[in-house]
Amino acid sequence: MAQPIQFEILAADGAARCGRLITGHGVVDTPAFMPVGTRAAVKAMAPHELWDIGYRMILANAYHLAVRPGADLIREMGGIQAFMGWHGAVLTDSGGFQAMSLASINRIDEDGIRFRSHLDGRPMLLTPESAVEIQQKLQCDIMMALDECTPYPAELSYARQSLELTARWAERSLRARTSENQALFGIVQGSVYPDLRAASARQITSLGFDGFATGGLSVGEPKLLMLEMAELSASFLPVDKPRYLMGVGTPTDLLAAIGMGYDMFDCVLPTRNARNGCAFTSGGRVSIKHSRNIRDSAPLDERCGCRTCRSYSRSYLRHLYRAGEILAARALTEHNLFFYANLIAMARSAIASGNFAQFRRSIASAGMEDFDETEEN
Amino acid sequence: MAQPIQFEILAADGAARCGRLITGHGVVDTPAFMPVGTRAAVKAMAPHELWDIGYRMILANAYHLAVRPGADLIREMGGIQAFMGWHGAVLTDSGGFQAMSLASINRIDEDGIRFRSHLDGRPMLLTPESAVEIQQKLQCDIMMALDECTPYPAELSYARQSLELTARWAERSLRARTSENQALFGIVQGSVYPDLRAASARQITSLGFDGFATGGLSVGEPKLLMLEMAELSASFLPVDKPRYLMGVGTPTDLLAAIGMGYDMFDCVLPTRNARNGCAFTSGGRVSIKHSRNIRDSAPLDERCGCRTCRSYSRSYLRHLYRAGEILAARALTEHNLFFYANLIAMARSAIASGNFAQFRRSIASAGMEDFDETEEN
Repeated sequence: MAQPIQFEILAADGAARCGRLITGHGVVDTPAFMPVGTRAAVKAMAPHELWDIGYRMILANAYHLAVRPGADLIREMGGIQAFMGWHGAVLTDSGGFQAMSLASINRIDEDGIRFRSHLDGRPMLLTPESAVEIQQKLQCDIMMALDECTPYPAELSYARQSLELTARWAERSLRARTSENQALFGIVQGSVYPDLRAASARQITSLGFDGFATGGLSVGEPKLLMLEMAELSASFLPVDKPRYLMGVGTPTDLLAAIGMGYDMFDCVLPTRNARNGCAFTSGGRVSIKHSRNIRDSAPLDERCGCRTCRSYSRSYLRHLYRAGEILAARALTEHNLFFYANLIAMARSAIASGNFAQFRRSIASAGMEDFDETEEN
Repeated sequence: MAQPIQFEILAADGAARCGRLITGHGVVDTPAFMPVGTRAAVKAMAPHELWDIGYRMILANAYHLAVRPGADLIREMGGIQAFMGWHGAVLTDSGGFQAMSLASINRIDEDGIRFRSHLDGRPMLLTPESAVEIQQKLQCDIMMALDECTPYPAELSYARQSLELTARWAERSLRARTSENQALFGIVQGSVYPDLRAASARQITSLGFDGFATGGLSVGEPKLLMLEMAELSASFLPVDKPRYLMGVGTPTDLLAAIGMGYDMFDCVLPTRNARNGCAFTSGGRVSIKHSRNIRDSAPLDERCGCRTCRSYSRSYLRHLYRAGEILAARALTEHNLFFYANLIAMARSAIASGNFAQFRRSIASAGMEDFDETEEN
């Protein structure tokens, strides 16, 4: 069977590495941040804008798309890339996490996750096999195996049972895969127990996946524990396959994880914070609602070259936000995604030139730690 | 005093004419449709997109902007064009209509309109003088005199008193104007009474306005009466000044009004209908919600060259709309505004080549009358 993706490491600096991931829908430079397009759309953005900012791979959600508009429909429309008019690659999460968190009634057993659709209450069963089948219909470039995202906190005994279930599901996922041009990634669990992380990583990496993800983090555990578990998990992942840290994170988290050798990331922070009026800037977090912006004719970030910063003042953005204009969500989302793309591109350059540690220190000293308090409002 | 705007007629075909309006913020080809940007933003659109479609003048609302963010703030930010990052011209409606329709408590007397802000209940008074003052602070290119938009239906005696008040307010507006680089337009009222329309037009056009608008139409009266009153009013307006038919209308209304010699138009239909899932196409109205679009891989309009039609299928647009994605509003608004811009551009070409009547017939036979039922849902 031909390799559905190829991964080449171009340079390394300590554990950090930069490379390229060759998919059926183009080349993705790594480390790569994937904007979250849960329902086949990155909220407030158009695909051509994501492309223009420099993104080449986005994330979508198999559960959401299976519920609406349906995986068969997307298959008939030529796959998710054609359906969206997106010329880059797509990774889909299996949706196990959403089935557990969004569904009104759910139950997990050996077969899979039984739940009722969050839209119409229809009973559904997500199994390792059906998750692969859905993702094959979506024709995404990278599929994720169904896992149980162990909640936090979890007792040791529960966490152990959970990762064993995830391991059995991983094997079933691989057996269910029939597509030759879609990669399948396995997911390491193990909660915050070092021994369990090691055991899960050994189990999952012994299987024939095309790449590996660290899951079950950023689910409520303390930041330092998240970073410690992410680093421990990474140490067990093979060097020659892409490594994906799921659901992470703030700019400082991303740089920390890149330093551990992760290659791929996704997070709702840049897009969700934007819709809540919060911008990431080179000087730290900016809440556009703040009264200090009322008469501020400066852009969000004097050092930013995005269209929002070239076009709009803080004063105008505050007005748009308070008036509830769609353009507020658009402009802030475009800025935040530009900020993330730029940060990752700078990280790649720093790795290539052997200056990654120095680059991280320079970012840390610019007030980026401000982002570690996520704003939910 | 230098002319704040210049208006040149380049060609005429019957009563229809095409020309150009030269403002302090660029040249506007006429006939011109102005997208509605009530609160200094055309809903769901970014200014650069309006420009790329070909728009060079938009409409904003003095009342709304005076309430929030305030006219002084916009003046400090360099005027509404700089505030918005819009490189074209702006016409502002005085907001008398909004003060009457949106405010919770309002009362009209000789002085002006007394009302409470629809946002915070603050008591406000809009007079002919304050409406000019606000619009001068906004630094729009074209100001509208405060008028009483006579409601429909109106008794003859009320309609007569109303237009007399509008005439006295018109004179006060002209006396209040101090800006040398902003045009001021007067507004013809008279409800649906031919004698009153004639009287109002004679009164208003005897004053030194830079252009003239026909107001008080599209406020609930039957379509044929609207067209009859629009045509009658136009017949009294001077040939050498721009003529603006306020709040009109559907594609067929626009072509009818262009045929009467109107030069400028505004209407919420293309933008509001878009947000309600309704698209204007060369084959008539398309409701994107309709189940016939579920598996339709065709664009909204096979004959349309807009980005939406080049990028997205009806199937994807329906999914976006049902999922409540912002991109649905964006894509449909961009399409509808492209449709309007294209229609008006074709009308200009037809006038220039003396084929306007033929052009109108060709549009009418393409199912455009479908648009005459406005969709509100």
